[in-house]
Amino acid sequence: MTQPRHPLTDAERIDWIRLIRTENVGPITFHRLLEQYGSAARALDALPELARRGGRTKPLRVASKAEAEREMQANRRFGARLLCACEPDYPEPLAAVDDAPPVISVAGHAHLLRRRAVAIVGARNASLNGKKFAESLARELGAAGLLVVSGLARGIDTAAHAGSIASGTAAVLAGGIDVVYPPENEGLYRDIVAQGVVVAESPIGTQPQARHFPRRNRLISGLSLGVLVVEAALRSGSLITARMALEQGREVMAVPGSPLDPRCHGTNNLLREGATLVERADDVLRAIENLRPPTLAERQRDLFSAPIHTHAIAAEPRADLDESDLAKARALVLENLGHSPVTIDELVRGCQLSAPVVLTVVLELELAGRVQRLPGHQVSLA
Amino acid sequence: MTQPRHPLTDAERIDWIRLIRTENVGPITFHRLLEQYGSAARALDALPELARRGGRTKPLRVASKAEAEREMQANRRFGARLLCACEPDYPEPLAAVDDAPPVISVAGHAHLLRRRAVAIVGARNASLNGKKFAESLARELGAAGLLVVSGLARGIDTAAHAGSIASGTAAVLAGGIDVVYPPENEGLYRDIVAQGVVVAESPIGTQPQARHFPRRNRLISGLSLGVLVVEAALRSGSLITARMALEQGREVMAVPGSPLDPRCHGTNNLLREGATLVERADDVLRAIENLRPPTLAERQRDLFSAPIHTHAIAAEPRADLDESDLAKARALVLENLGHSPVTIDELVRGCQLSAPVVLTVVLELELAGRVQRLPGHQVSLA
Repeated sequence: MTQPRHPLTDAERIDWIRLIRTENVGPITFHRLLEQYGSAARALDALPELARRGGRTKPLRVASKAEAEREMQANRRFGARLLCACEPDYPEPLAAVDDAPPVISVAGHAHLLRRRAVAIVGARNASLNGKKFAESLARELGAAGLLVVSGLARGIDTAAHAGSIASGTAAVLAGGIDVVYPPENEGLYRDIVAQGVVVAESPIGTQPQARHFPRRNRLISGLSLGVLVVEAALRSGSLITARMALEQGREVMAVPGSPLDPRCHGTNNLLREGATLVERADDVLRAIENLRPPTLAERQRDLFSAPIHTHAIAAEPRADLDESDLAKARALVLENLGHSPVTIDELVRGCQLSAPVVLTVVLELELAGRVQRLPGHQVSLA
Repeated sequence: MTQPRHPLTDAERIDWIRLIRTENVGPITFHRLLEQYGSAARALDALPELARRGGRTKPLRVASKAEAEREMQANRRFGARLLCACEPDYPEPLAAVDDAPPVISVAGHAHLLRRRAVAIVGARNASLNGKKFAESLARELGAAGLLVVSGLARGIDTAAHAGSIASGTAAVLAGGIDVVYPPENEGLYRDIVAQGVVVAESPIGTQPQARHFPRRNRLISGLSLGVLVVEAALRSGSLITARMALEQGREVMAVPGSPLDPRCHGTNNLLREGATLVERADDVLRAIENLRPPTLAERQRDLFSAPIHTHAIAAEPRADLDESDLAKARALVLENLGHSPVTIDELVRGCQLSAPVVLTVVLELELAGRVQRLPGHQVSLA
């Protein structure tokens, strides 16, 4: 990811797929491995040993070349493209996210993803007025040249797609690119494949499960300059998307609503917390007119200008680290970790170890399934 | 007004009434005159000469002693008290307002005005939900010990009074204390006189006219720690009350509503501009819990610690000013004034005159009807 964006060969793409489909490798670990080993192929070679050092006893389940090829073929047959995060066609605002999906499936008109985009999300059990509002707003934002991103859910999402189907709409799925959820949106889904664009992070064929939805939401915000929430109850999925948007440095916008309607409590709360109040398309256009999403280059600069220069590890060959020192470091890191997340920087300070040592140890523990990476350079016990 | 608060004798009260009922004497001029001459009686003596100097040719219409006595008697007969701004029973938050009404009529339970108060105002053509919300919020705020202040109008005002009638409600009228507007609120008015409190600035018997309503609104906010607006269209009277509250340093709060309802555009705009978002009584209670309105003493300190020490004029006897200098000053002030308001300070700088001279000249021009005082130490050509 430190190289400029470039298309991958089929062989490289196979390696990317294998690496991200490997047990205990999430998007952040993927990017760490790529940074440390320079290519997915070399990371794949290093995996078994890293996991063993982290305390793994049974072998790590690494996706085979055949499995990756089958995934590529299934996408091709379905008419979808696989885009890797380093490729020029991969949407740059999404590539700039810490935990950008290394590989996405895209069906329909991928070129739409180059447009400036805004997400419109909200309650599944939305009011008639809320749906009417979302649809007309999506229509106006589409007319203003924006791509409208949403999640193909019932209610507000459906209205947002419907309003922008003619101008340009992107549906981000929680399951595989070929799995329509909810089933009643089959017709809308087909229309979007035909006229818009569909994006999925899960492997083709994946049935969406509850845990997929929050992860999917980071793609909705990650593809967009800002997220507009139209009707949302407290503790609803739309608020997760709003939180992701905040973490990703995107604009958060909300439509005010009556306090007597619980479907407005979440949106009103966002306003209370400083979200931009939206009553008409113009409010959205003004809120995002001077925005551009952080670019991948900026994300890297940001990572590398962190107080502790975590990229130093890449420059420091693994062989330089003494195994008995690493064993002690591993024990110390485990001792300092709990179930509530801490940042890598806090861990480095708490352990009084060098950043490269801590990063190596964390990577190993992660692959061993003992530690998990979280967005915002955070880790916790798994 | 520089003395501590004290009850007035009947004779003094007569003078206060005469002075405020005199042509070209508004509340700010009243307070200036009182400050400069020490008593209403001495100000009344000085009036004709001041107006003449200001360029008045026909005599100023000064209210007679008999007229003032008739006003006092009419109030007494009606069962209302006249309270002067310097008196201990006059509500202190209102006394702290720059253009506090020098005299108010109060009917019903005047002691309620000592409670911590919050205003609830809004659209006359409010939605059923808006009225329901205002009523239940007023009930809860009343239960929390607050006096609920409103304007006896249709819609939100009526609901706010209805919700707080049992706990304590104050209606501020635009016309005289005995003139019910709108007529259909006759029953509510009687209930408020019986259980709550009614306040009016206009002389008893005055039929309310359009120009009275914005002036009345400054009393609604002036009596309160904060103003909550429940449903208000753009350019509505409730927004004037909100602006008054801001100018008076009071909390401005608004209830969010659907952008599809024009009755929510004004309230949503207030939120956009930073008003506190209110969904329930607790939001109001939290917003005002640490507030207390500026006291009269603070207002005086504030006035007197302004960049230019305008009270200096009180210390500088009128006789010290040379008449030919004053004539030149008068011409210069008129030349520097236009129809858009400027502050006294700007005028002092623009004219390169001393503050006492400018204040004297402005007072004279005002009494002559050539200049008008506006809140915030501003003046303009009449």
